[in-house]
Amino acid sequence: MKRKICVVITARPSYSRVKTALRAIVNHPDLELQLVVAGSALLGRYGNAVDYITKDGFEIAEKVFMVLEGENPTSMAKTTGLGVMELSTVFYNLQPHVVVTIADRFETLATSIAASYQNIPLAHIQGGEVTGNIDEKVRHANTKLADIHLVASEGALERVIKLGEDPAYVFNTGCPSIDLANEILDSPGLNFNPLEKYGGVGSTIDTNNDYLVVMQHPVTTEYEESRLHIDQTLDAIRELGIPTFWFWPNVDAGADGTSGGIRTFREKHPGLPIHFFKNMEPTDFLRLLYNSRALIGNSSVGIRECAYLGVPVVNIGTRQHGRDRAANVTDVNYSKTEIVDAIKNWMANQRPEPSTVYGGGNAGEQMAKVLAEVPLRFHKTICY
Amino acid sequence: MKRKICVVITARPSYSRVKTALRAIVNHPDLELQLVVAGSALLGRYGNAVDYITKDGFEIAEKVFMVLEGENPTSMAKTTGLGVMELSTVFYNLQPHVVVTIADRFETLATSIAASYQNIPLAHIQGGEVTGNIDEKVRHANTKLADIHLVASEGALERVIKLGEDPAYVFNTGCPSIDLANEILDSPGLNFNPLEKYGGVGSTIDTNNDYLVVMQHPVTTEYEESRLHIDQTLDAIRELGIPTFWFWPNVDAGADGTSGGIRTFREKHPGLPIHFFKNMEPTDFLRLLYNSRALIGNSSVGIRECAYLGVPVVNIGTRQHGRDRAANVTDVNYSKTEIVDAIKNWMANQRPEPSTVYGGGNAGEQMAKVLAEVPLRFHKTICY
Amino acid sequence: MKRKICVVITARPSYSRVKTALRAIVNHPDLELQLVVAGSALLGRYGNAVDYITKDGFEIAEKVFMVLEGENPTSMAKTTGLGVMELSTVFYNLQPHVVVTIADRFETLATSIAASYQNIPLAHIQGGEVTGNIDEKVRHANTKLADIHLVASEGALERVIKLGEDPAYVFNTGCPSIDLANEILDSPGLNFNPLEKYGGVGSTIDTNNDYLVVMQHPVTTEYEESRLHIDQTLDAIRELGIPTFWFWPNVDAGADGTSGGIRTFREKHPGLPIHFFKNMEPTDFLRLLYNSRALIGNSSVGIRECAYLGVPVVNIGTRQHGRDRAANVTDVNYSKTEIVDAIKNWMANQRPEPSTVYGGGNAGEQMAKVLAEVPLRFHKTICY
Amino acid sequence: MKRKICVVITARPSYSRVKTALRAIVNHPDLELQLVVAGSALLGRYGNAVDYITKDGFEIAEKVFMVLEGENPTSMAKTTGLGVMELSTVFYNLQPHVVVTIADRFETLATSIAASYQNIPLAHIQGGEVTGNIDEKVRHANTKLADIHLVASEGALERVIKLGEDPAYVFNTGCPSIDLANEILDSPGLNFNPLEKYGGVGSTIDTNNDYLVVMQHPVTTEYEESRLHIDQTLDAIRELGIPTFWFWPNVDAGADGTSGGIRTFREKHPGLPIHFFKNMEPTDFLRLLYNSRALIGNSSVGIRECAYLGVPVVNIGTRQHGRDRAANVTDVNYSKTEIVDAIKNWMANQRPEPSTVYGGGNAGEQMAKVLAEVPLRFHKTICY
Repeated sequence: MKRKICVVITARPSYSRVKTALRAIVNHPDLELQLVVAGSALLGRYGNAVDYITKDGFEIAEKVFMVLEGENPTSMAKTTGLGVMELSTVFYNLQPHVVVTIADRFETLATSIAASYQNIPLAHIQGGEVTGNIDEKVRHANTKLADIHLVASEGALERVIKLGEDPAYVFNTGCPSIDLANEILDSPGLNFNPLEKYGGVGSTIDTNNDYLVVMQHPVTTEYEESRLHIDQTLDAIRELGIPTFWFWPNVDAGADGTSGGIRTFREKHPGLPIHFFKNMEPTDFLRLLYNSRALIGNSSVGIRECAYLGVPVVNIGTRQHGRDRAANVTDVNYSKTEIVDAIKNWMANQRPEPSTVYGGGNAGEQMAKVLAEVPLRFHKTICY
Repeated sequence: MKRKICVVITARPSYSRVKTALRAIVNHPDLELQLVVAGSALLGRYGNAVDYITKDGFEIAEKVFMVLEGENPTSMAKTTGLGVMELSTVFYNLQPHVVVTIADRFETLATSIAASYQNIPLAHIQGGEVTGNIDEKVRHANTKLADIHLVASEGALERVIKLGEDPAYVFNTGCPSIDLANEILDSPGLNFNPLEKYGGVGSTIDTNNDYLVVMQHPVTTEYEESRLHIDQTLDAIRELGIPTFWFWPNVDAGADGTSGGIRTFREKHPGLPIHFFKNMEPTDFLRLLYNSRALIGNSSVGIRECAYLGVPVVNIGTRQHGRDRAANVTDVNYSKTEIVDAIKNWMANQRPEPSTVYGGGNAGEQMAKVLAEVPLRFHKTICY
Repeated sequence: MKRKICVVITARPSYSRVKTALRAIVNHPDLELQLVVAGSALLGRYGNAVDYITKDGFEIAEKVFMVLEGENPTSMAKTTGLGVMELSTVFYNLQPHVVVTIADRFETLATSIAASYQNIPLAHIQGGEVTGNIDEKVRHANTKLADIHLVASEGALERVIKLGEDPAYVFNTGCPSIDLANEILDSPGLNFNPLEKYGGVGSTIDTNNDYLVVMQHPVTTEYEESRLHIDQTLDAIRELGIPTFWFWPNVDAGADGTSGGIRTFREKHPGLPIHFFKNMEPTDFLRLLYNSRALIGNSSVGIRECAYLGVPVVNIGTRQHGRDRAANVTDVNYSKTEIVDAIKNWMANQRPEPSTVYGGGNAGEQMAKVLAEVPLRFHKTICY
Repeated sequence: MKRKICVVITARPSYSRVKTALRAIVNHPDLELQLVVAGSALLGRYGNAVDYITKDGFEIAEKVFMVLEGENPTSMAKTTGLGVMELSTVFYNLQPHVVVTIADRFETLATSIAASYQNIPLAHIQGGEVTGNIDEKVRHANTKLADIHLVASEGALERVIKLGEDPAYVFNTGCPSIDLANEILDSPGLNFNPLEKYGGVGSTIDTNNDYLVVMQHPVTTEYEESRLHIDQTLDAIRELGIPTFWFWPNVDAGADGTSGGIRTFREKHPGLPIHFFKNMEPTDFLRLLYNSRALIGNSSVGIRECAYLGVPVVNIGTRQHGRDRAANVTDVNYSKTEIVDAIKNWMANQRPEPSTVYGGGNAGEQMAKVLAEVPLRFHKTICY
């Protein structure tokens, strides 16, 4: 009999993160995928992940509405409680051999409790990382409920073991987001014209010459502070004068000053060699990065995918604090001088060696292999 | 303003465990107790803890029915989910400064999630212990969600710190169960006649002479195996011939052979110097132990209270495996010979020194002191 | 495409009531049965209906645990709320064309809300009856949420229409409990020896001669009152001296005096021609009734099945108040004289004509036919 | 002891509807208000009713988040289920003597179930009305669960009684929305300048001369159809040439053509004597109506408040179908000719007599009086 692997997707980013693993499970001769789509993955205003899942050809075993209105701490807690109740029924009826919970969003604990309390072996993806705040609590609580750990780096593996988990059940499969980066490496050239394909505004940039890419998200809700932060980066790019593709930040909270800072700067300094984009398809974005001289900002792409692609990164501020990193990353403060110096340094030097700190590009397949072969258990004792 | 400390009691044993802490919170000038009684603590067939709580004079802020029928893994999970939802509303309306969750029963995670997701500092009592099975998962998950740790021993303190918790927020207050043992030490004499007060069946025993106490619970659901286990103890007591007070085990599962083994043995060997009791008031039981030559069996009383009282313990089998222990405990296998030897050894030697491995008898007050004085926080990062 | 008919069974008696309808749905060429087993139908201490359902060969689409512990009004309400949440997910995933809710237990409103709020046409079985108490509220609320009404008698049909329902959607199919009575009519002889097959206690009775059957349930929770009630019946049977099969009442509440009254009476009057049974298989019980001279007591069997079988019934007290009845029923008060007179009267007269007041024995098939043919709708307006 | 009256507010319109009743309960010497604010009344994107409630000085006993994301049928059902669970706990802890549920929104059934299943007498406001769709089902189901009925008109009273309710428990208190209309009648003059106070766009209108008011909401989700409907009204107003205050419709669904129709018409016919407003404070709006020659459109204000104020109403289409109405209402189809004729007719005739079909302006006080004096019960039987 095939092992039934029940994966619960509760949000759009989680889907992107495990897509190659889902594919590998479907393709594995000893595994059967039971896909549960729940929570915000079903909702239009969170990007309707369910539509992408269906379009990608995955069969959905069950859908569960469980998000309470409010987007406040109370509704987060209650959403989790509701998730426990509903997912318990789902697992009871699907009878999977393994349940997979992903990362550290608040509602992932619902999957963990519904599975572990019903004595279903629980696999946790992306444990052992460090971020602070509520994600931190949720991630490590997931680890303590899980029986099988599929982590993304050696640092994460070490931390999970330090948390008292049996090393025999902790597997560094790498991060499935690297799998996509791996796919472009066969022919990594810039096979499209960014300005033609994506429009955007600002100066025209010739991608045959050196260019930079900037992607910087706000890390504070104080308008003034986030504006001061982005101003340092804008000033640095202005001083350097190197053509730059700049990606608008995701604006979650209304009160941030990042977008405002960019707009004001553009009015004050027209004619700068900067072109602005809203977004880009994942593989196009990876190609743009691969052919750039450096990524500047604070995106996790700099830490993960750029490590694998060997793209220099000037990582600004604290947003990626605590994450494992390869030699491609230069950490700097919110300081024009530090940013300029770091970019100049990378321009003067060779590309960094590609690193597999977040895996070798086959994380999805490795996860499927572990799920097919690991001895199943649902009882454990702390390993101290 | 007083700090509002919201303690959630979900089961009768949890109430016993924290009663002195509740009293100390009520009495502390800087604290206000918000007592929530929930789950099986409200139900008749689990011992109606709510009645004892009321009789002891504690005011109840809110009652929450949340136990699903079934006593199976699915109902355990759903009970927890329902608890998260309901306790979220309760905390939202009570607005406590700290929420306290107790130990490791499955539904205690509901309290932890409802509090931590709402950014209410969470204190966890009795973390860092080791037991195996689902309790183990729940206990350590509680630790990873909690901001303040009130543990019962140095070993537990070390394990909680190993789990990545900030030592500044881990406090070895001792176990409140020791507080009661402390109360009898002023005049520890046997101030009652056990046979007159509690009846029971079997031989008459003169408590002026040496006597033993036996309390052994089944650790397996296999009838034959638990019967073989108890037979070894019965044979040991028979061989020694020392007068013995024997307490019937709690029978949770119907299929165990412990009670059956005792009954058969009594019929086969009438006239042995053994007297059987069903139960005894806590302080009377502690006095009986204090004046005995040894406790034999596998009760946690041997590990905790007897350590503090300096009572020799012959601890049989694996039930207390992983718990910190003092010099009063001799561990033996399910073996008549080992049991006999261990008892003889204690009879030939002095009482062990009293130990404060599980605290100095003021755990309740220490907990109240920590809750009143610890800086409150609800964000943390793993300390590796 | 076949119409998918989702029937939700939440309790053992509901299953008995619709079993022939389930069979007819399975056998109907245009219908597909989606059977959901939920609530107490899954629980051992309520008779494990799920086992019977499985044994009878029905396939179960989904199982839902939803009963809260407590058996008090609060747990009843919360069970219903939980049922709404869980059944909503179930219906969302099963996508039935019609949902069927049964009768008037408190949790049946959960089925009705989950279906009607999701715009799934809702069929309600056994509306329009009259009983008082919370069942009364639930039953008529079910009617106001339902789009299709499958009632058991003309009186019920009239009441449902009076409640403002469109007569085009109200169908008197008869009660499926009559279907079983119909099955024995081909050869209604007593083809078993009651004493041999069911044991019981009391006098030996020759079923070739006249005999009575008594089945009387308590209708009050006051011990003294229910005892006075049963004493009247016992005295009546003693005075008549006719051999009698007496069925023990279902004892729900512990405090009733019915069983106590019977026990005391037996001790006081040994040697009476009464034989006592605990229970009997449904068809055996119907044969016993068919061959008796009368049923005495307050069971709904007297009102329903005995009407169809043409068995005289002396119906005592208020328990069946408000139910439609045929000519086979003589209503009397809790009075020895009235009971004796009514029995004597039936003994002196002919059997009553069989009546189809509760249907012609093909209710299950008629229900399936309606469900296959009725135009489906989920909006309606009160018909005043 | 005062009767504790627990009113559950789940939405902003419900609050407006019962505000005078809440005030009357607070002021009544024999009543104590327990106000529960739940559901969308707590959420910003539904108008934050909780802020108005607090600003109006009402004390809130408990707040309950219960709205699931999605605004689809499944989330409506689950919101109701969650409401049952949470409100059961709230009522269990508050121990009210009466619970009040309001009108017919889907989640009001949660209040009804939580109260009636716990044997708390349930009062239902605004039963007996007729609308079609899911509101219709919910309203009458509320009636069947309720013990006390506080209805708004004689027609509603008759329908509730037809539904089998005991006339002794059905009270026509009138609609509390009339209470506000009553307040302006002491000095009903137009004591403000609409254009100065509310701005708006369009022609300047002199309120000393005759003017009309239009308020017409879409009743269909088909863009073309709702556009044809509004065009008839616009053409009628253009033909008449009487100065008109026009209120923009509430746009719930994005696809309606009402707003689009108005915009196109304005561009095509500039200079018409129409002034457009978005909204107005309730009492200002009532004064504007009182001093107008007629209200045209399909607002419930025409049916209720205008009846009491004696303002002529030309009611267009089916939106108010089934509502009781006074002599002030002329019903017309979506037809320019019919609208013009009806307005001309009112212009040529006297104001209609004020009517108390929806009450005499003291509904709040009457409700409080009933709640204080009605014998409380929680069991009932259908009155047929």
